[in-house]
Amino acid sequence: MKTDIEIAQSSKMEPISKIALKLGLKEDDIDFYGKYKCKISLDVTERLKDEKDGKLILVTAINPTPAGEGKSTVTVGLGQALNKINKNAIIALREPSLGPVFGVKGGAAGGGYAQVVPMEDINLHFTGDMHAITAANNLICAAIDNHIHQGNALRIDARRITFKRVMDMNDRALRNTVVSLGGKLNGFPREDGFMITVASEIMAILCLSHDLMDLKEKIGEIVIGYNLDGDPVYARELKVNGAAALLMKEAIKPNLVQTLENTPAIIHGGPFANIAHGCNSIIATQMALKLGDYVVTEAGFGADLGAEKFFDIKCRYGNLKPNCVVLVATIRAIKHHGGITKDKLNESNLLAVQKGIQNLEKQIENVKKFGVPVVVAVNKFITDSAEEVEFVEKFCAERGVKAVLTEVWEKGGEGGVPLANAVVDVIETETSKFNVLYDDKLPLKEKILTITKEVYGGRGVNYTPQAEKQIAELEKLGLDKKPICMAKTQYSLSDNPKLLGKPENFEITVKELRVSNGAGFVVVLTGDIMTMPGLPKVPSAEKIDILPNGEIVGLF
Amino acid sequence: MKTDIEIAQSSKMEPISKIALKLGLKEDDIDFYGKYKCKISLDVTERLKDEKDGKLILVTAINPTPAGEGKSTVTVGLGQALNKINKNAIIALREPSLGPVFGVKGGAAGGGYAQVVPMEDINLHFTGDMHAITAANNLICAAIDNHIHQGNALRIDARRITFKRVMDMNDRALRNTVVSLGGKLNGFPREDGFMITVASEIMAILCLSHDLMDLKEKIGEIVIGYNLDGDPVYARELKVNGAAALLMKEAIKPNLVQTLENTPAIIHGGPFANIAHGCNSIIATQMALKLGDYVVTEAGFGADLGAEKFFDIKCRYGNLKPNCVVLVATIRAIKHHGGITKDKLNESNLLAVQKGIQNLEKQIENVKKFGVPVVVAVNKFITDSAEEVEFVEKFCAERGVKAVLTEVWEKGGEGGVPLANAVVDVIETETSKFNVLYDDKLPLKEKILTITKEVYGGRGVNYTPQAEKQIAELEKLGLDKKPICMAKTQYSLSDNPKLLGKPENFEITVKELRVSNGAGFVVVLTGDIMTMPGLPKVPSAEKIDILPNGEIVGLF
Repeated sequence: MKTDIEIAQSSKMEPISKIALKLGLKEDDIDFYGKYKCKISLDVTERLKDEKDGKLILVTAINPTPAGEGKSTVTVGLGQALNKINKNAIIALREPSLGPVFGVKGGAAGGGYAQVVPMEDINLHFTGDMHAITAANNLICAAIDNHIHQGNALRIDARRITFKRVMDMNDRALRNTVVSLGGKLNGFPREDGFMITVASEIMAILCLSHDLMDLKEKIGEIVIGYNLDGDPVYARELKVNGAAALLMKEAIKPNLVQTLENTPAIIHGGPFANIAHGCNSIIATQMALKLGDYVVTEAGFGADLGAEKFFDIKCRYGNLKPNCVVLVATIRAIKHHGGITKDKLNESNLLAVQKGIQNLEKQIENVKKFGVPVVVAVNKFITDSAEEVEFVEKFCAERGVKAVLTEVWEKGGEGGVPLANAVVDVIETETSKFNVLYDDKLPLKEKILTITKEVYGGRGVNYTPQAEKQIAELEKLGLDKKPICMAKTQYSLSDNPKLLGKPENFEITVKELRVSNGAGFVVVLTGDIMTMPGLPKVPSAEKIDILPNGEIVGLF
Repeated sequence: MKTDIEIAQSSKMEPISKIALKLGLKEDDIDFYGKYKCKISLDVTERLKDEKDGKLILVTAINPTPAGEGKSTVTVGLGQALNKINKNAIIALREPSLGPVFGVKGGAAGGGYAQVVPMEDINLHFTGDMHAITAANNLICAAIDNHIHQGNALRIDARRITFKRVMDMNDRALRNTVVSLGGKLNGFPREDGFMITVASEIMAILCLSHDLMDLKEKIGEIVIGYNLDGDPVYARELKVNGAAALLMKEAIKPNLVQTLENTPAIIHGGPFANIAHGCNSIIATQMALKLGDYVVTEAGFGADLGAEKFFDIKCRYGNLKPNCVVLVATIRAIKHHGGITKDKLNESNLLAVQKGIQNLEKQIENVKKFGVPVVVAVNKFITDSAEEVEFVEKFCAERGVKAVLTEVWEKGGEGGVPLANAVVDVIETETSKFNVLYDDKLPLKEKILTITKEVYGGRGVNYTPQAEKQIAELEKLGLDKKPICMAKTQYSLSDNPKLLGKPENFEITVKELRVSNGAGFVVVLTGDIMTMPGLPKVPSAEKIDILPNGEIVGLF
């Protein structure tokens, strides 16, 4: 069997100019980055602003399991399949981070015959967006410590600096550091730490901005910490948000690539799905809607986190109206939710499917609460039994939802044609009545309780004393009138990763709140979240190599 | 008067495809980065390997002074001027670092009417080479700490890790840090620190490599520190040099841009001139020599450091034979070497010129020791008096060297035509008999003494006990049979920045040695060298901005 990188490298890419031309873009609209990548000018959105929007399709999933669901692969495959049935479809994806490439994952651009290419470039530096974010972020950090060193006119409390340095690398050694050691010339020592670049508020801002001036404004609104009186200190007070925005002048432009079947794919922005909202940029999605009749996009983690934040944060700020949600599941993952351990997932087990499907059922209900029609994509595995698949199809049909088998990993777009037909059918016959879940001007606790009850199916919310204090402070400072960005385990509808399927009667515990004032949301943490991953015992980096003949190995 | 960025932005750039075409490059040879930048495939060098090389001209200077000499400006202006007199000339420059852009400098791409463009892109992310180096460097660092965390099979001595993390930013807070704090999950705490990216050994390796496999090999040869037995630990033992090289697969390709007058400029690599050798890449220079009849390049700092390292390190490894050296001086700088303070430099003072010219005299002598013919470029200032200029011209003429006034800052190539004519004349009439100064297989102390006596004009060398110990260790480990990379103040021929002009009878003191085993040189430090700059009280970043109309301000 071919590896992903082998499939990717044996594909026949079209020059990206040709893909751009197909989308109706003009020569001046694009800037090449090599022959197979380009950036699209924001003038395009302005020029096409009176054009009709295409249909927006969100691909999300049940709660992730170690079995794997293949959400990105289905997203790419569905885009390819829509083109197979002669629809003008564009895929809108997130940019992968370099860190995981060298850690466990090895790469992230779909899989099998449903990939975006050039896979090795997308997984490495791509067009430099991550590096621009890193630079903009770290410029602000350098300005913070320099401000303190040069007299600290703003009276920044060195114990309460919340804005951290970032690096696009999995590097646990940088999680907790002490900086400015070595004496008077090097500043005032303080505790600090690095996050991975995709966890940066700058990344979230990139994804929620409408243009470069909006981005500059939002960077200025970042609360970098507090002064000695306990008042917030804003990035704009350091006067470097203009320079930070300048560093992002290219990064703000969406990137165009293609799939293995030459379907256009816009890849832009990739914020973490815990500390941020986990979707590609508003700019890219809006542009794709102007350029295509169908836009397939995805959100991080399962629907309880990814879709909820897509709707309540991204769609709210981007004024987007999704037309259809594709919920991805596999028989194996459903069985895992039914209590089956990883080593037994290959055996047919109808009882487990009947039990585990409650997770899918709840996620369907959740999406319907936002008023958006649903199609279920059952991503086929060779071990799936006919009776297991039939049960899922029937179960969904009884709830008025079509469940469709997809084989895009093995067959590319061809394997997604039934799904594509079902999606088009739903969009043409069912009207989306999209609504956000809550009014963002409500008190924090009301918003959190609404999400917990309506989406997670929980009974209530507990707050640690620290969280209570932070809520009071955010309300006092007027920083609370924003959407909520939940940071919760992705493995369960609850905040306990062990509660699979559809847990009930549980309460979640909020431990901490952090305001991303520039991005425009309040992060609510129900546990420790990892903002700087580490490398495993044998990192992918040890297998990744480039050979004398130019062949790249180890990316998969 | 227009600022540099205003002049740059009002220039009429040609599409870079047109510049490439003029050089005889084919469509497949280049990868665009936007419309005005491209990378050139290394296949070009291979294809043209039997072509005759052009003439290589090194621009260097007297010891720098606060008065400013304008070396980069003369380099760009000379390239433009050579084209004005119908020579096929290419400029080969270093890439600027992002750090100084936001610090004091604001930008570095020549000045006035002798600039490379697009100035704002070259000064910001350019084609991402710095970011690739940062990523490759920090991948190795993450692998070091991960190796220790995962059991430390190599028995790396955490107290003796010499390979540091880097960031392309002026950030003094990162000079000295403690990492891996916070408990068992975060690794073993140790002292660490960051350098600015251009100080990275990876940057030096990029500039001294012949191709990507050579670069991979050299990265593997980096000594990242020592084990508990005191033996060197090599980067290749961490098995990530393949992944690091893959990260550099685009960075290794030279970048093509143009000057304000559409002269081709290849900008590639930019190592520090203290801890490294301070020249652009061998790959870029060799390629330029195949593509142009005249190649104008420059080296960091004054001729005692920059030219010496250009000859003894870059030319040695690159098998380059420079045909001519242009020594840049200004009347103001000569007066400064003659003892005049900055506030009095605008007054005519022949006596000061007569005294300060000894610095120029010594640098001329030095270049001649390498067998290369010299032309002196007197970069004109409005305050220069006729008698001062005449004196310099006569002084040089008496020593068989032509001194030529240049006005490239105000007039572009036109202002450099006399210099261009002089350079062409020297190349056509004087044969370069280039030789390196010393055999790199000699003992370290012999090599250091040779440079001190022959180039600096000093009497001898003192070694601190630490330096003595390090020399013994390097010799014991067999890491000493390499060229020397002197790290010395750029302001004086001696190691004391206050000794201007031509100091005599001095001794230099070597405090420390560091091996850059991958790059292939031994750094000899005569004082503290700054490998991570800080931001000033009011950093340029506060003035740099992008306005709603897209106008960029504050880069100069």
